[in-house]
Amino acid sequence: MKNQNFAKRVINYDSSVLAELFIESSNPINTSFAGGYPDQQLFPSAEITTAFQQALTTNTPGIFQYTDAKGPVALRTILAQRHLQRTGVAVTADDLLITQGGQQAIDLITRLFINPGDGLAIEGPTYVGAISAFESYAPTYYEIPMEADGLNVDQLEADLKAHRGANRIKLLYTIPDFQNPTGITLSTAKRQRLAHLAAEYDFYILEDSPYRDLRYRGTELPTIQSFDHHHRVLYVSSFSKILSPGLRVGYLVAEHDMLVELAGLKSANDVQSPNMTMLALAEYLTTNNLDQHIAKMKPIYAEKCHVMVNALRKYMPAEITFTEPEGGFFLWLTGPKKLDLNKFMHDILLPKAHIVFVPSQPQYASSDIRNCARLNYSNVPLEKIEPGIKQLATYFKAYLANN
Amino acid sequence: MKNQNFAKRVINYDSSVLAELFIESSNPINTSFAGGYPDQQLFPSAEITTAFQQALTTNTPGIFQYTDAKGPVALRTILAQRHLQRTGVAVTADDLLITQGGQQAIDLITRLFINPGDGLAIEGPTYVGAISAFESYAPTYYEIPMEADGLNVDQLEADLKAHRGANRIKLLYTIPDFQNPTGITLSTAKRQRLAHLAAEYDFYILEDSPYRDLRYRGTELPTIQSFDHHHRVLYVSSFSKILSPGLRVGYLVAEHDMLVELAGLKSANDVQSPNMTMLALAEYLTTNNLDQHIAKMKPIYAEKCHVMVNALRKYMPAEITFTEPEGGFFLWLTGPKKLDLNKFMHDILLPKAHIVFVPSQPQYASSDIRNCARLNYSNVPLEKIEPGIKQLATYFKAYLANN
Repeated sequence: MKNQNFAKRVINYDSSVLAELFIESSNPINTSFAGGYPDQQLFPSAEITTAFQQALTTNTPGIFQYTDAKGPVALRTILAQRHLQRTGVAVTADDLLITQGGQQAIDLITRLFINPGDGLAIEGPTYVGAISAFESYAPTYYEIPMEADGLNVDQLEADLKAHRGANRIKLLYTIPDFQNPTGITLSTAKRQRLAHLAAEYDFYILEDSPYRDLRYRGTELPTIQSFDHHHRVLYVSSFSKILSPGLRVGYLVAEHDMLVELAGLKSANDVQSPNMTMLALAEYLTTNNLDQHIAKMKPIYAEKCHVMVNALRKYMPAEITFTEPEGGFFLWLTGPKKLDLNKFMHDILLPKAHIVFVPSQPQYASSDIRNCARLNYSNVPLEKIEPGIKQLATYFKAYLANN
Repeated sequence: MKNQNFAKRVINYDSSVLAELFIESSNPINTSFAGGYPDQQLFPSAEITTAFQQALTTNTPGIFQYTDAKGPVALRTILAQRHLQRTGVAVTADDLLITQGGQQAIDLITRLFINPGDGLAIEGPTYVGAISAFESYAPTYYEIPMEADGLNVDQLEADLKAHRGANRIKLLYTIPDFQNPTGITLSTAKRQRLAHLAAEYDFYILEDSPYRDLRYRGTELPTIQSFDHHHRVLYVSSFSKILSPGLRVGYLVAEHDMLVELAGLKSANDVQSPNMTMLALAEYLTTNNLDQHIAKMKPIYAEKCHVMVNALRKYMPAEITFTEPEGGFFLWLTGPKKLDLNKFMHDILLPKAHIVFVPSQPQYASSDIRNCARLNYSNVPLEKIEPGIKQLATYFKAYLANN
């Protein structure tokens, strides 16, 4: 039992499943489909190292001192330009806050809006790290099911209509592009409708899009923010998937009054991010072509995704369905309702096949759904994907026969 | 008026005074006694730059990848050794969590213990950044007045006795060494008593000691943690004052079950700190002698402190008293009760003398005390201290005569 002096947010949240997954995932004996890591063979190590050297020698001694909580204006200026190029939404350096990865942006935006009990709409399933951040602020969850073209907006609107009082929805959290964990992309029509609903029902949208640049097929869709004419969307992005997660640089784009408060919350949380990583990133973006780097990575991730989907088609029993993502790092398996994939993993898969994935249960904030799982392909060595899926399918078949 | 969709923690907290101070403090026209920055002439820029280069080239490509939320074991091992050397308390790498400066440690420890309304004892006055972190968790404050030898422990015990129910004190926040903002050091007897009280009354102590290594005179006192035999003390330190705040590296030392939860909260907050800064610090600490660097800085800060105290003695009217710190960055001015030093600063000091300090009011979490102010000497050029204080005294005299 946990120490009863801890806050309820800590006593009520069970992170043991994820902590165990982290350990199993790092164990080299296992084939891990569990992680959410980029492929570290793809990091432009030499270029980033040079950027650090350059940033450290040209910004001395100011780089070692405190700076603005929002982050150095040099970096924010570059990111504002990139935001316009990549999403068509014109912003200035003052509309941007540099965060410690996308994760801190999720934490701070929740902190900005959510009192204990306030309504927070989320996708079911959603990014498990976002749930862990939300838990600190004790929201009332409205879990919106995922469909093939993204969250069920009819269900969202029904919830918006049904709850107009103290527990009304104040914030929607969505990952529109190649969602973590399902790999599903939200349709353009739904994006547009969400922007309208936010203005109509007086709520805000946290549009979290760390995988947006990693599209392997199909056409890029406009951001939800691009349909927003009422400052309802807070857009979050990150360099963790497209450059290096070790840098811990993400950013958010928000309307001025929100940004001022978010900068204050950032300051209360950790004063600021490290100057060295922020100025090294500014230097990297100035002297290198990030889009070329992304273009180099995409066929490699696309092939991993393709090999996994093909192997699933070839080996998986018909009772197990799966998504076929157009980008990102993940796809989603769904088995018959009776199946408990957490139990399957612990009883069979891990001890017998040394395979690990993320079972569905911790990826839902309120539902108890156990018949699904997330598979990652970005960080699995290419040659291990097909044999791993083949073995997974073999154990699935046996388990289905006996359960 | 703030957006009423924001959470209460945001609507209720007025950070505008501090935001304005930040701007005035950065304005080169002003002599700023307001900041809390180290003197950037003292940063070992070349050594840190070399450490980054070394860390980046020897840890490739892992340094660019995600890592353990607690931070790299290489750094935690060095810090555990340093903690033993510097405080006499034996800990292992597993007892340490690397945080984004001391600030994040304060945020996470508050998040670990404080439900809305839970009792949090703090010094009055206290570090303004800690108050901003506490506000996110809506505690009930018990403000314990400062005396010449640190917080009034009798008052604390009276509060502990008086409140045994739902709003009992769960956590005490104290800065025992050269407190921010008063410069006061907590006596050994009080440290020992606090450790006993924590066990007796079932509360925890956040011992925040970023200035501990910067003692200019007198004898180092044992940490509160060194008297703790019941895992009641969570110790927080930082490299911001003794090496470089731009690095954003701090750490906390806590008992195992707490550390596991704090690592989970760190992960929910920002996943981890950047590998580059953490591994560069490990490299710096391996190839350089930090204590020698500190020994080089101390006489420079000691002189600044000495010059400020002497100038206060020489020029200040008798109605204005001040502390005489044995270390750290700050001292504390106290004027007659009727004086409003925020008003004095805005009406007179800033427009006429271009001098800025931090008035007392935002440095109290609940009391409305306006007749005091914090003065910083660490980041004021030495030659500006005496003339600045002389001018300050002149305006004080005139203001006292008219108010």
